[in-house]
Amino acid sequence: MTSRKSFGSDNHAGAHEAVLRMMAQANDGHTHAYGDDPWTDRVTSDLCDLSGARAAYFVFNGTAANVLGLSLLLHPYEAVICAETAHLNVDECGAPERLLGSKLLTVPTPDGKLTPGLVATRLGGRHDEHRAQPRAVCITQATELGTCYSLEELRALGEFCRGHDLRLYIDGARLANAVASLDCTVADIAAEADVLSFGGTKNGAVAVEAVLVMAGDLLDAAPFQRKQLLQLASKMRFLAAQFAGLLEDQTWLRNAEQSNSMAQRLATGLRDIRGVTLRQAVQSNAVFADLDPRITGPLQHDWGFYVWDDHRNTVRLMAAFDTTADDVDSFLADVREASASRV
Amino acid sequence: MTSRKSFGSDNHAGAHEAVLRMMAQANDGHTHAYGDDPWTDRVTSDLCDLSGARAAYFVFNGTAANVLGLSLLLHPYEAVICAETAHLNVDECGAPERLLGSKLLTVPTPDGKLTPGLVATRLGGRHDEHRAQPRAVCITQATELGTCYSLEELRALGEFCRGHDLRLYIDGARLANAVASLDCTVADIAAEADVLSFGGTKNGAVAVEAVLVMAGDLLDAAPFQRKQLLQLASKMRFLAAQFAGLLEDQTWLRNAEQSNSMAQRLATGLRDIRGVTLRQAVQSNAVFADLDPRITGPLQHDWGFYVWDDHRNTVRLMAAFDTTADDVDSFLADVREASASRV
Amino acid sequence: MTSRKSFGSDNHAGAHEAVLRMMAQANDGHTHAYGDDPWTDRVTSDLCDLSGARAAYFVFNGTAANVLGLSLLLHPYEAVICAETAHLNVDECGAPERLLGSKLLTVPTPDGKLTPGLVATRLGGRHDEHRAQPRAVCITQATELGTCYSLEELRALGEFCRGHDLRLYIDGARLANAVASLDCTVADIAAEADVLSFGGTKNGAVAVEAVLVMAGDLLDAAPFQRKQLLQLASKMRFLAAQFAGLLEDQTWLRNAEQSNSMAQRLATGLRDIRGVTLRQAVQSNAVFADLDPRITGPLQHDWGFYVWDDHRNTVRLMAAFDTTADDVDSFLADVREASASRV
Amino acid sequence: MTSRKSFGSDNHAGAHEAVLRMMAQANDGHTHAYGDDPWTDRVTSDLCDLSGARAAYFVFNGTAANVLGLSLLLHPYEAVICAETAHLNVDECGAPERLLGSKLLTVPTPDGKLTPGLVATRLGGRHDEHRAQPRAVCITQATELGTCYSLEELRALGEFCRGHDLRLYIDGARLANAVASLDCTVADIAAEADVLSFGGTKNGAVAVEAVLVMAGDLLDAAPFQRKQLLQLASKMRFLAAQFAGLLEDQTWLRNAEQSNSMAQRLATGLRDIRGVTLRQAVQSNAVFADLDPRITGPLQHDWGFYVWDDHRNTVRLMAAFDTTADDVDSFLADVREASASRV
Repeated sequence: MTSRKSFGSDNHAGAHEAVLRMMAQANDGHTHAYGDDPWTDRVTSDLCDLSGARAAYFVFNGTAANVLGLSLLLHPYEAVICAETAHLNVDECGAPERLLGSKLLTVPTPDGKLTPGLVATRLGGRHDEHRAQPRAVCITQATELGTCYSLEELRALGEFCRGHDLRLYIDGARLANAVASLDCTVADIAAEADVLSFGGTKNGAVAVEAVLVMAGDLLDAAPFQRKQLLQLASKMRFLAAQFAGLLEDQTWLRNAEQSNSMAQRLATGLRDIRGVTLRQAVQSNAVFADLDPRITGPLQHDWGFYVWDDHRNTVRLMAAFDTTADDVDSFLADVREASASRV
Repeated sequence: MTSRKSFGSDNHAGAHEAVLRMMAQANDGHTHAYGDDPWTDRVTSDLCDLSGARAAYFVFNGTAANVLGLSLLLHPYEAVICAETAHLNVDECGAPERLLGSKLLTVPTPDGKLTPGLVATRLGGRHDEHRAQPRAVCITQATELGTCYSLEELRALGEFCRGHDLRLYIDGARLANAVASLDCTVADIAAEADVLSFGGTKNGAVAVEAVLVMAGDLLDAAPFQRKQLLQLASKMRFLAAQFAGLLEDQTWLRNAEQSNSMAQRLATGLRDIRGVTLRQAVQSNAVFADLDPRITGPLQHDWGFYVWDDHRNTVRLMAAFDTTADDVDSFLADVREASASRV
Repeated sequence: MTSRKSFGSDNHAGAHEAVLRMMAQANDGHTHAYGDDPWTDRVTSDLCDLSGARAAYFVFNGTAANVLGLSLLLHPYEAVICAETAHLNVDECGAPERLLGSKLLTVPTPDGKLTPGLVATRLGGRHDEHRAQPRAVCITQATELGTCYSLEELRALGEFCRGHDLRLYIDGARLANAVASLDCTVADIAAEADVLSFGGTKNGAVAVEAVLVMAGDLLDAAPFQRKQLLQLASKMRFLAAQFAGLLEDQTWLRNAEQSNSMAQRLATGLRDIRGVTLRQAVQSNAVFADLDPRITGPLQHDWGFYVWDDHRNTVRLMAAFDTTADDVDSFLADVREASASRV
Repeated sequence: MTSRKSFGSDNHAGAHEAVLRMMAQANDGHTHAYGDDPWTDRVTSDLCDLSGARAAYFVFNGTAANVLGLSLLLHPYEAVICAETAHLNVDECGAPERLLGSKLLTVPTPDGKLTPGLVATRLGGRHDEHRAQPRAVCITQATELGTCYSLEELRALGEFCRGHDLRLYIDGARLANAVASLDCTVADIAAEADVLSFGGTKNGAVAVEAVLVMAGDLLDAAPFQRKQLLQLASKMRFLAAQFAGLLEDQTWLRNAEQSNSMAQRLATGLRDIRGVTLRQAVQSNAVFADLDPRITGPLQHDWGFYVWDDHRNTVRLMAAFDTTADDVDSFLADVREASASRV
């Protein structure tokens, strides 16, 4: 393990103590497998209460959540519209195309966010059998660029989708960060979606995401799609227990608030350093900043972050649930020192 | 949780304490994600040493291990030969067909075991473009019927495959039970395979299996197939840590020995009860027994096992790593009492 | 070209003159592509009138017709029940598994025909997420073994499917032969199906089959599935024209009657030859007969038929639309002579 | 049929007389099915001689040729780089994604043509398991925008691919037009490719394309991929015969020369009409022109062409193998008249 925190990714962090504690607590004798156990019952029910979902399905990671969620919405000849920067498009090794058989219709965006107007640019060719038929819209909340859809923006998208025979899927790998940022409820966001994911892993779990199904017509297929997509855990109680840890005393929300606030601290500090330019609104736990290329290498070596855009030397800095003010201040000091030495 | 042990499945058990202990130990600060961490390095290396594999890949469950393993061996127009009773054929909701695009060529067997002769019955139609081309053989060790291939039988199959342009995949969801039963090494079994899985979950892990790649020509594709098949964990150290727990002091072997020996105790006890007939050789942790249908219902209610064959009223009894002699004796007493009351 | 007729397959024949004549007639100036032309309109309409279908889609071959037809009925986690001997299972190189993602649940049959009782044997595991869910039944009319379902048998299967939440697909690669054999209408058979194919190629076309959709809920997906499954012809008029040739003066029916009657003549002749045993009821244009292995080779060389079962030396003899009484008599004379020489 | 020629598409034309004549000639008695016949042997051999290919496979349409060709080059976790305007991306209803499981990495181009520099922009993320791995480049010759790669451009791309572990696939739906335009041989173009298609349908066939395999390591899979991708014709001689018609007296080349020259005549005429702007170099049988939106509707009604770009009112005009100078002149007269009336 590295002795200092990494700003490379929120999944460089380990697990929150409540998560491991609940897993240990769930390790109590024999119970039925595949979700027919009291832990799964209770936590699923809690997630439905929190979000207004009709059903919740645990899966192992975010790519799986996206593919399972979209599998409920799409035939293979139907397409999903998403931002060019979407995790679905960029970071899933083509799993959506292979496993759904569907085409991704991508849209360039300045900030990772789709709008009704941007979605409309990909609605051509409907009813033309030569074209994959636009049928779902996938947005990420919070986005891969650290931005959030406001509730107004979400409602506008939801309304647009309902009015244009489109289903809405929300990739919520960092849903908790969006809820914390918007100071809203999970249900406020979920209300616009047909299906969404609620990310556990980046929030402090070991390896679990929940797929929340809002629309009643989608329920029958879900258990079979989950199994066929390799996401059915035999000892399901241990997936449920991870969420039990996150739900205990709203740990999920406090974790998100902490990482969001550390990103704000980071942004505030960076804004004051000469030669550093912030690139996106900081609305979750990510900060994108252009650094002087001459200082990037050594800082990267110590702090493990990624260069996002080679041309502008934009780096991505992620705060995790366990990132502290000291971690941020220590990093800022290093940036300041490196920058000063270059003047 | 039920207050008594279940004989329904080895995945009704929880996790071995070493597994949870190692996960807690791995929860130490930040580290790189997706397997670029010291836990993954070390445990992968240990698994390769144990088995002779060139690489090991962690996945989340047994169906995923099978699909990933076979994805390295098959084009979609190629078929896999397996026993009709194989988990691959019966219990994976068609995931192999969907995700590989390949056909399963099934063979009825008396005991869940393929032989060169049985494999040969499905080799027709080679070079005929109308037929899916037999290319891999999938065997399960130990089988779904609780039997084991002897090392001689394995070697005969391996030799047959090498001589007939076939690759051999071993579904090792209960590989530890086979090793314990045969009193051999993992490497003894692995030597015959091109790819095999080494099951962690039924052996006492939370949710992890290892896909062991023996053949050098298969290495390039594996990381990409794993990701595309939704099996890449971000916080990989926690998957590695589960195996670290099982590997510590050969816990995996002791767990398998315990469940195997409890199955033997069960079998020995059942043989002496009038009206009970054992159905398969007991060579791992499963016992198949025909019960009087009149006593099955109440026993099933208390002990949670499954009826495997409705016609003969054959039930499957599985011992887990934490099944004790008291559990077995208590169950046997119930069977004896129920049987006596029916005479 | 061989100088004599082959009994190897009904697709060893060429095209009926009416088919090529209509293609030439359709070759008249420019028209819209992809089916928006008068030939496609008219012939589609004629096929719907003949069968009671709501829509008809032309495709290029029988495997494509089967995959397209079933694509309208199945999600990938759903399975199709078919006879072990079905073309779908045996002769399509695993295309159904790859392209549908679905599992085939096969049933051994004595005569290539499913019954409600045989279908019922594969209905286990419904609602169990570990099992591919039985959702469609695929039967072949006439079957690969030359037999036909009577209308009573068809109705019993149709009723069973409707009563058990199953959809019925009929592989009609030799539908015309079944209609001729049963002395019924296309609509009589189609009435029981949700989707069926009407084979043109074996009946005298160059390369065309029609997928007839009976159930209204299946129409929306069909054009997109056809395109995505590589079956959309740009110069569609030439596919329609082939069927126009077959429909002219009921050529399709006369072609089927001819090949059926030649199969009867063949069977009658073979029954009288010592050492020859017929294997199936002769209800279409196929005859299955056990020959003395010593005479098979030379006859096969001259007459190009296939050995269907190596163990019993059963050969398949197919009559085509252009097989004549002279062809049959000449073949029978050869068999008689060869048999006599072996006595 | 419309009484006048359409400029809507080269597949609005019918078939060349030599094609139908050869089909009639091939209709001579019985022969073996699935390509084991003298017509297939001879024409396949002729195509190999013409192109330098090691094998040629007939398929039914252009989308099928593209999917089959790429199936020989890609695993599902590998991606194909193509122009945003490629038929593969725009007009195939997502068939490549569904049937290959692969991702398309698209590149905007001014003229439908890729360059080494443009390909290089999509080579990021190699060896990163989160990214679909660039493995093939697909170019179209002639392109969907009517342009052609020069032999120098082709060689530069071929060399780039060979130097960067990429395979080159050429979509040759209009390969004949490119050969005619460049005044080169088929082999000149084929030499740079690993696989390419040679389009018959738009050149005057009924429904046939040839997939030409240049690279020896790709041969084994091809027959099985063709069958599994629903492209194996039983009466193959009729597909071969179509190409026999095109190959007779270099009909394919004369057909392409005619449509190319009619496109030139069209372009020359349009250049002189006020208010008409040509959009692309006219290097095959397509002309792209911006028209005054007020005259487009009536012209479109009579001449059946498509609006390609709504914003600039760019229309696409295609000449077919049977388009005559009279057709072009009559169309030009109509454009002139309509334009004059708007001044």
